[in-house]
Amino acid sequence: MIPDDEFIKNPSVPGPTAMEVRCLIMCLAEPGKNDVAVDVGCGTGGVTLELAGRVRRVYAIDRNPEAISTTEMNLQRHGLGDNVTLMEGDAPEVLGEIPDIDIAVVGGSGGELQQILRIIKDKLKPGGRIIVTAILLETKFEAMECLRDLGFDVNITELNIARGRALDRGTMMVSRNPVALIYTGVSHENKD
Amino acid sequence: MIPDDEFIKNPSVPGPTAMEVRCLIMCLAEPGKNDVAVDVGCGTGGVTLELAGRVRRVYAIDRNPEAISTTEMNLQRHGLGDNVTLMEGDAPEVLGEIPDIDIAVVGGSGGELQQILRIIKDKLKPGGRIIVTAILLETKFEAMECLRDLGFDVNITELNIARGRALDRGTMMVSRNPVALIYTGVSHENKD
Amino acid sequence: MIPDDEFIKNPSVPGPTAMEVRCLIMCLAEPGKNDVAVDVGCGTGGVTLELAGRVRRVYAIDRNPEAISTTEMNLQRHGLGDNVTLMEGDAPEVLGEIPDIDIAVVGGSGGELQQILRIIKDKLKPGGRIIVTAILLETKFEAMECLRDLGFDVNITELNIARGRALDRGTMMVSRNPVALIYTGVSHENKD
Amino acid sequence: MIPDDEFIKNPSVPGPTAMEVRCLIMCLAEPGKNDVAVDVGCGTGGVTLELAGRVRRVYAIDRNPEAISTTEMNLQRHGLGDNVTLMEGDAPEVLGEIPDIDIAVVGGSGGELQQILRIIKDKLKPGGRIIVTAILLETKFEAMECLRDLGFDVNITELNIARGRALDRGTMMVSRNPVALIYTGVSHENKD
Repeated sequence: MIPDDEFIKNPSVPGPTAMEVRCLIMCLAEPGKNDVAVDVGCGTGGVTLELAGRVRRVYAIDRNPEAISTTEMNLQRHGLGDNVTLMEGDAPEVLGEIPDIDIAVVGGSGGELQQILRIIKDKLKPGGRIIVTAILLETKFEAMECLRDLGFDVNITELNIARGRALDRGTMMVSRNPVALIYTGVSHENKD
Repeated sequence: MIPDDEFIKNPSVPGPTAMEVRCLIMCLAEPGKNDVAVDVGCGTGGVTLELAGRVRRVYAIDRNPEAISTTEMNLQRHGLGDNVTLMEGDAPEVLGEIPDIDIAVVGGSGGELQQILRIIKDKLKPGGRIIVTAILLETKFEAMECLRDLGFDVNITELNIARGRALDRGTMMVSRNPVALIYTGVSHENKD
Repeated sequence: MIPDDEFIKNPSVPGPTAMEVRCLIMCLAEPGKNDVAVDVGCGTGGVTLELAGRVRRVYAIDRNPEAISTTEMNLQRHGLGDNVTLMEGDAPEVLGEIPDIDIAVVGGSGGELQQILRIIKDKLKPGGRIIVTAILLETKFEAMECLRDLGFDVNITELNIARGRALDRGTMMVSRNPVALIYTGVSHENKD
Repeated sequence: MIPDDEFIKNPSVPGPTAMEVRCLIMCLAEPGKNDVAVDVGCGTGGVTLELAGRVRRVYAIDRNPEAISTTEMNLQRHGLGDNVTLMEGDAPEVLGEIPDIDIAVVGGSGGELQQILRIIKDKLKPGGRIIVTAILLETKFEAMECLRDLGFDVNITELNIARGRALDRGTMMVSRNPVALIYTGVSHENKD
C-alpha cells in the first residue's frame, strides 16, 4: 500500500484516502489481473494508483480538472499509469463511454450517486463488486438505499482510525474522520 | 455545560476539554455543593469552570502562567471564579498547600503523574473521587497502574466522539481525538 | 448518573441507554426544576429515571407493555416516580394527551419518527430541546432530515465508547455499539 | 481475504481476527512470495491462513493445543497448509527452532511479549517487519516500549470497526472491540 505521505497533494482536491481505508477497499474489491475497474471521483488518485498496480485497466473519472492532473502526477511519480485512462467530466456522462467493469469504487459522486450507481449496475459484469466510500451521513444512507433498490445485498462497515503521533511526552492518538464503506455482495437479480 | 466555542483560547494552552468529555467528567465526579475539588493542569479552564458552578471551592493548578491567566479570563467571562483559587506552579509542590479534597480531576501532569496521584490519595476524603483524563497512550497505562498500586478499584472508559459539520453537500462527521477517562471506584484501603 | 447495572432488565425491552450516553443526553437536555419532559420509547427507563430526578414532570411513553412495567419497577427501585406519568401506547396517539413540553427525548419511534417529531414540535415550548438517540443508520438520517425540514438547526454527535474490563492478563477494552444523538438548537421558525 | 464466518471456531480459542484487521495486517506485512513468516499465538488461524497464501513458509506457534488443531482444521478447509509448520509450545522456546524471518505477527504472547520480541528481533532479516496486535491496554503500552527499546521506529494504529447488521427496522451498526496494531518501521540499529 502506498503511504499517505507519498502522494502529491493539491489543496483543492480531496484525498488521498487513508492508507488503512485503501487497504480495506482493495480487500473488498478483490482485484484480479484481468479485471477492469472504474474509480469514480478519483481525487488525488489514492484508489486509482492501488487499482493500477493490480488490474488490467482502470478508468479514473473526476469532474475537477485539478483532480485529473493530480492523479496523473501521482501515477507518474509512482511509475504507474500505462493501464489508466483519465477521464475529466461528470460521471453519469463519462461512464457511458467505458466498457463493462468488474470493480467500481465510488469515492465522490457530486450529488449524483443514484444515477451513477444505476449506470454502474448496468455495466457490472457477473460477480462484479461495487464499493462506495462515504464520509457524509447522507451518502451512507443513500448508498445503502440505492444499492438495495437496485437488487444488491448491501453491507456497510464504518472505520474509526486513530494513529499514534510521537510527542516528547508520549504517544498521542490522533483520529482520522470516520469513513464508511458500503459494498455489495451478490445482486439478487443476478442470482436468477 | 458550557459550549466549547464560548471559551477564550490561547494557542500555547491546551483545551478546552470537549463538551462531551467535560460532561462525562462531571457525571463521574458527582460534584456536591459542599465539595472541595482540585483541577490539576487546568489549561484553558474547561473543567475548572464546570466545577466552579457545582462545588464549594475549586483549586485550579497549572505550571504554565498562560494557562492560569486563560482560566482566569474564562472564569470572568462566565461570571464564575468567586470560589476558585488559581495556583501557578508544579502540581506536586502546590498540592501540598491545599486542604483535603472530595474531587480530583487530573488533566495534565507534566510527567509527574505518579507523584501527583500519591499526594492526591493522601488528601482524598473518604468517598472521594479521582478522574484522570488521558490523551497519551502512556498516560492511560500509567494512570491505571498507579491508581491500582495505590489500592483503588480503577475503571477506564475511552470516548471516540464525532460531530456533524454541515456542508453544502451534506453532513460530514468530524472526529475528535480519542480521550480516556481513568477513574476510581472505592479504594481497597479505605474499605477497611 | 445511575450505573447501568443498577437497572432491572427485561430481555424483551431494550436498554438501559449506556450511562455515558444518558450523561450526554442530560447535558444537552439542560433539565430545569420546572421543566416538563417526555421520553418517547422509554424502554428500560434509563432516561426517564434521570429526567425524573431533575424536572417537574416526566411523561414516559412506550407501546410495549413490558417496557412500561420495567420502567415502573426501576422507578420504584430508585425511589423515583412521583412525578412520572407512564403511558402505554403508540407515541403519535399518546403524545396528543400530554401538555406542552420543554424537553423531548426520543429513544424509540417504532417507525413513526417523522410523525412523532412533528407532534413534538407543536408541543415544544419556546427554548425547548429535542434529542433523538439513534442506533440505526436510517434513524440518524431521518432524524436529521426531519428536524431540518421542521425548521430547526440540527446537530449530530456520534459516540463510540469502550470500557475497560479487567482480565487476569490485563485490561481489555470492550466497545459499546455506536450511538448518535441528533439534537436541536434554535428553531428557525421560533426565531421570528 | 477469507470472511470471518468461513473459519471453524473453537470456544476455547480466540479469533479469528476480524477480516478488516487481517486486511490491514497484510498491508503492513507486505508479504512476498519468498518470505518466511511467523505467527505467534496463531489462535484460530486467521492470520496464518492469510500468510500461507502469500509467502513461502509460515511458522504458526501457539501453546494451546486446541489452537494448533483449530488452525490445522482451518488450513485443511481452505486447501492451505502445505507451507505451514504448526508448532505447539511456549513461543520463547519454540521460536529458537525456526530460521530467520521476514515477517513476524504477534497476536498472543502469554505474558512473555518482551522476551518474544527480543528473540524475533534477533531472527529478523534486514528489512523485516514486526506487527503486534493488541486488545489489552497493557499490551499496547508494552509493545510500544519494548520495540522502541529494541531500536525500532514504532507506529501504532488503532481500529474501531462497526459493521451494519440488517434488522427489520433498519441497519444497526455493531461495534467490534478496538484493536491496535503496533508495527515497526526501520530499526535504528539496522540503519548503521
